[in-house]
Amino acid sequence: MPGNPAVPIRGNRFCIVGGASLVGSATAGELLDHGAAEVVLFDNFAFGSDAAIAHLKDHPRLRLVRGDVMRIADLLRATEGMAGVLQLAAYMTLSMDRDPWGGLDVNIRGVQNALEACRVNKVGKVVFASSNATYGYGPGVAGELVEDTPFHSVGAPPAAILYGASKIIGEQLCRDAFRKWGQDYVVLRYSTVYGERQHYRAANALYIIETLEKVRRGEPPEVFGDGSETKHFVYVGDLARANRMAFESAATDVAVNASGPAPTTTLELVRLVTELAGAKGEAAPAPRFVGNEPGKVRLTSGGAFRIAHEAAFQAIGWKPEVDMREGLRRLIAWRDSNEGKAA
Amino acid sequence: MPGNPAVPIRGNRFCIVGGASLVGSATAGELLDHGAAEVVLFDNFAFGSDAAIAHLKDHPRLRLVRGDVMRIADLLRATEGMAGVLQLAAYMTLSMDRDPWGGLDVNIRGVQNALEACRVNKVGKVVFASSNATYGYGPGVAGELVEDTPFHSVGAPPAAILYGASKIIGEQLCRDAFRKWGQDYVVLRYSTVYGERQHYRAANALYIIETLEKVRRGEPPEVFGDGSETKHFVYVGDLARANRMAFESAATDVAVNASGPAPTTTLELVRLVTELAGAKGEAAPAPRFVGNEPGKVRLTSGGAFRIAHEAAFQAIGWKPEVDMREGLRRLIAWRDSNEGKAA
Repeated sequence: MPGNPAVPIRGNRFCIVGGASLVGSATAGELLDHGAAEVVLFDNFAFGSDAAIAHLKDHPRLRLVRGDVMRIADLLRATEGMAGVLQLAAYMTLSMDRDPWGGLDVNIRGVQNALEACRVNKVGKVVFASSNATYGYGPGVAGELVEDTPFHSVGAPPAAILYGASKIIGEQLCRDAFRKWGQDYVVLRYSTVYGERQHYRAANALYIIETLEKVRRGEPPEVFGDGSETKHFVYVGDLARANRMAFESAATDVAVNASGPAPTTTLELVRLVTELAGAKGEAAPAPRFVGNEPGKVRLTSGGAFRIAHEAAFQAIGWKPEVDMREGLRRLIAWRDSNEGKAA
Repeated sequence: MPGNPAVPIRGNRFCIVGGASLVGSATAGELLDHGAAEVVLFDNFAFGSDAAIAHLKDHPRLRLVRGDVMRIADLLRATEGMAGVLQLAAYMTLSMDRDPWGGLDVNIRGVQNALEACRVNKVGKVVFASSNATYGYGPGVAGELVEDTPFHSVGAPPAAILYGASKIIGEQLCRDAFRKWGQDYVVLRYSTVYGERQHYRAANALYIIETLEKVRRGEPPEVFGDGSETKHFVYVGDLARANRMAFESAATDVAVNASGPAPTTTLELVRLVTELAGAKGEAAPAPRFVGNEPGKVRLTSGGAFRIAHEAAFQAIGWKPEVDMREGLRRLIAWRDSNEGKAA
């Protein structure tokens, strides 16, 4: 299928696999706002939730399909007539730890099934949600993380390495599809996502909610270690835009980072959440420095790092726009809204 | 299953999964020579061959089981009563390129199935055949490759990265089994294996045979690039010993390299094969320097590297004993024997 890899949004149909999710619902909104003829949210609701898509449910151009990436027939039907497919469905590290059989199935065979369905249905472009987990974990992960940074794994828990390696494999399955049948694709390596309709699955993003809830209860927020550990989040609305632009751009056969404007430290993050939560009038308790809980999968980084997003601008013209202060403000405002309280 | 992770060979039973192979047959011989009560060779003969095990077929303590790692019932039966299991069954890069669905199944689900069978049958120790492919490919792979060297993949073909990542996953499944139910294991990261009963599946080892055959026909052997590319092979008899010592040692929950005494270059290798083949009286044609064939999966290394095997000595008391000259002499002698001619 040679031709222009650019897939315009207006008038085209898109399927979001793993769509009943934080990123899925935000991207559906973005595609619908930009004139998509239809957006299909495909999900088995194992991790996806009605809450994540409640605000979209009655949209006339949105269709919800209950299906499973492990049943290729479901995908063959859901991707019929689609100009683009966004592949989000995945187990993350915490669920990979509980169920490595299911996790490796979904993150590898699920991607093979989705790509095969795209081949059969001549889907123009695939956007694959990869992760900065492809750079790994531990002290080796330091400095500028650019797209050719290798995968470090020494000292990381098995489930984290399984997750990272499964994403490396997912990316290569896209490359293989490009080589074997010319499947256009863009890989976006998301950093940790946060924002409105925040879910509770990701070890790092969960920390924001835990901190907010502690502060709101007047308890001291917990900081692991000395608080100097680097985090590099990305706001969900920025990611939705990156997904849309990956479809629209002429880029293909490329993998780029999609990270927020700048990294932060655990301590800065806790201070920011405390300050923003405090705007509602609560006292601002000082953080409590604690060690790691044994047996709990918590990913630690070694040196300071920054996930470079410059290559994404080169490839698809995207850069992040929402910094941590503004993103956290929006997340907290959503938590305080009726929708957030009900979630 | 806490206790001593050392599994003596004498009087114990062992199952070699993927046993009808170069490494499998050599290890079976090694275990039988050291008094194993029984060695079961488990293979589906997709890649394994009768030729690889013809010399062992009538051994009274050897049993051949036709089975498939994708059918866990086969493994549950084959591993009953076994003190140790050597997990060799895998797709390598060339077969991964042809069939990534089958390859990821065998290299990932196959390992999960084997580990699960070991859990059920209380197998004392697993030795998992990993690979120096866990350090990846391309210009990033240079200098001393030690056990915490990260995985490089920039510029490598998809199938090579799929293979390396699948081995990273296999190792982590062993670590996960150790953490979740105390499964003792040793991971050996084999470098490229060569020796008697050489098979034709591995891109790099195949090169030795190709070179030998060209020289024997009086044709110039082909050297890719300028011949300075590093190769680091290991002789199959050394690996068989490493597998045996991994069972016998008290080491567990560890991954170490199993490489030959020293690396070589393509040009040195070709010169050595030419010289050793020439001992039979043929002329020694000068090598022909050629470019890479487009579309062919051939793994190129960037800088000079050495796969360090010192950690293996620390962990299991093993070091390689057979250098390239002696190993190639044995391989060529075998090719010239009746068995080698029939293979």
